[in-house]
Amino acid sequence: MAAPPRDALEFPEADRVFLEPQLPPRDGTTPRADMPFTTLTFATSLDSSLALSPGTRTALSGPQSKAMTHYLRSRHDGILIGVGTALADDPGLNCRIVGVGGYGGEGLESQPRPIVIDPSLRWDFSDDSKLFQLCREGRGRAPWIVTTVREPPAEKDALLKKYGGQFISLNIPTSESGNHRIDWKELLITLRSNGLRSVMIEGGGHVINSLLEPPYMALIDRVIMTIAPTWLGQGGVVVSPARRFDGEGNPMSAARLKNVQWYPFGEDVVLCGQVNV
Amino acid sequence: MAAPPRDALEFPEADRVFLEPQLPPRDGTTPRADMPFTTLTFATSLDSSLALSPGTRTALSGPQSKAMTHYLRSRHDGILIGVGTALADDPGLNCRIVGVGGYGGEGLESQPRPIVIDPSLRWDFSDDSKLFQLCREGRGRAPWIVTTVREPPAEKDALLKKYGGQFISLNIPTSESGNHRIDWKELLITLRSNGLRSVMIEGGGHVINSLLEPPYMALIDRVIMTIAPTWLGQGGVVVSPARRFDGEGNPMSAARLKNVQWYPFGEDVVLCGQVNV
Repeated sequence: MAAPPRDALEFPEADRVFLEPQLPPRDGTTPRADMPFTTLTFATSLDSSLALSPGTRTALSGPQSKAMTHYLRSRHDGILIGVGTALADDPGLNCRIVGVGGYGGEGLESQPRPIVIDPSLRWDFSDDSKLFQLCREGRGRAPWIVTTVREPPAEKDALLKKYGGQFISLNIPTSESGNHRIDWKELLITLRSNGLRSVMIEGGGHVINSLLEPPYMALIDRVIMTIAPTWLGQGGVVVSPARRFDGEGNPMSAARLKNVQWYPFGEDVVLCGQVNV
Repeated sequence: MAAPPRDALEFPEADRVFLEPQLPPRDGTTPRADMPFTTLTFATSLDSSLALSPGTRTALSGPQSKAMTHYLRSRHDGILIGVGTALADDPGLNCRIVGVGGYGGEGLESQPRPIVIDPSLRWDFSDDSKLFQLCREGRGRAPWIVTTVREPPAEKDALLKKYGGQFISLNIPTSESGNHRIDWKELLITLRSNGLRSVMIEGGGHVINSLLEPPYMALIDRVIMTIAPTWLGQGGVVVSPARRFDGEGNPMSAARLKNVQWYPFGEDVVLCGQVNV
């Protein structure tokens, strides 16, 4: 085993214990035959913000939580983000835990497949994007880009294929307000049919809020979220699902968790649970 | 000691241990000579909502957290709310922990003084209000109502005085947007000069957000908040302080906690900390 690079992260065995019951089964079985085990994971402030504003990267959680995120990535076949996050962060979307491929391990072992939801192909990636740098260094996989565009630009397609990635065409309808409305069922079936047995959905706000709506929340197998003891203040990118009403038109809570576990983790807390549907 | 009423609450000794370092000193000393020890305490959803909408009472936290709130009340001289909460809840604003006055204890021992911030006297209380029912039963103290109105209606004044309450006149300026802007420093000095050595600020959203703004956050000695594993959804009454900007005009986090302690508590988590100023 080669020495891991200096930016490799350690996630202690002792901390792995609390997460184990929350993770996709190691034997690759899935709760639903046609879909991957689906984990929703993100970090917010006390006022439920992911970031100070769209397009900014906000350091919220502490180093322990960061290492946890990378450990979670090592335990999922795919990690999924919305295009907004790709535009904001130029993300690596790999896993830097000591022992995985490129960080002391063999090949690309335990490196997850990055999936970017980009309906209109707004992400203008290039050979210089961090993600492809990591591919060249053998430290991450090339992305799958899910889009409604039937014939993506040939040079982007060639770039993706060079590193082993692909475009995936999917029908993503547009709502009255002009936003794309992901059909999570169809998307997850597509990811499973492409070989993924587990997927970790990381953000951003639009992606998370849409998954927490009634038609889709039942598809979430686990929620693993980190809360940092900070208020970002009004105007942030907020996780808060659309309002729901009961049969009499009165507002009701949008989503509840069951089988809840809280783990104090450095300055932050980690909340694990299942959506109560 | 008389048998406590059936709605009395137990807060186990084992659970009191984690709170003790967060509470006002038992000897009545205060961090600042001219102000009470000030605790900010409230319960939110994961999306930082106190309630589904203004004027509705939303059951968020579990029974353990409710008992904790009443225990906290027994350890403060005063409990403070904004008029919106008084209008929404017809609150009792007393303490129902077994052993305090009216719940097995002598007289009004450990019953906190309710304080309602009501700049324009919108709260149309009467002899039937829950708070005065509790006064008649020897289970709570009459409120102090803090207002800008210099000459409150004589019959309200008489009703308050009958039970040992009072109006307190205070200059509460109005902002450009027409909202009242509480001068927390002046308010806390007034409460101390009226004899209170500790005060617990319970809500609602306007009160909490204004206290978390830069001129006042340093006056908070402790934050004790409960988070329930539920998203109320968009449109709730949200705790999120006003946006702050750094010297270069970039958004920055509005408030941070230090000396943070997280306590899993039934389905909820309790977060204790001090504002990092």
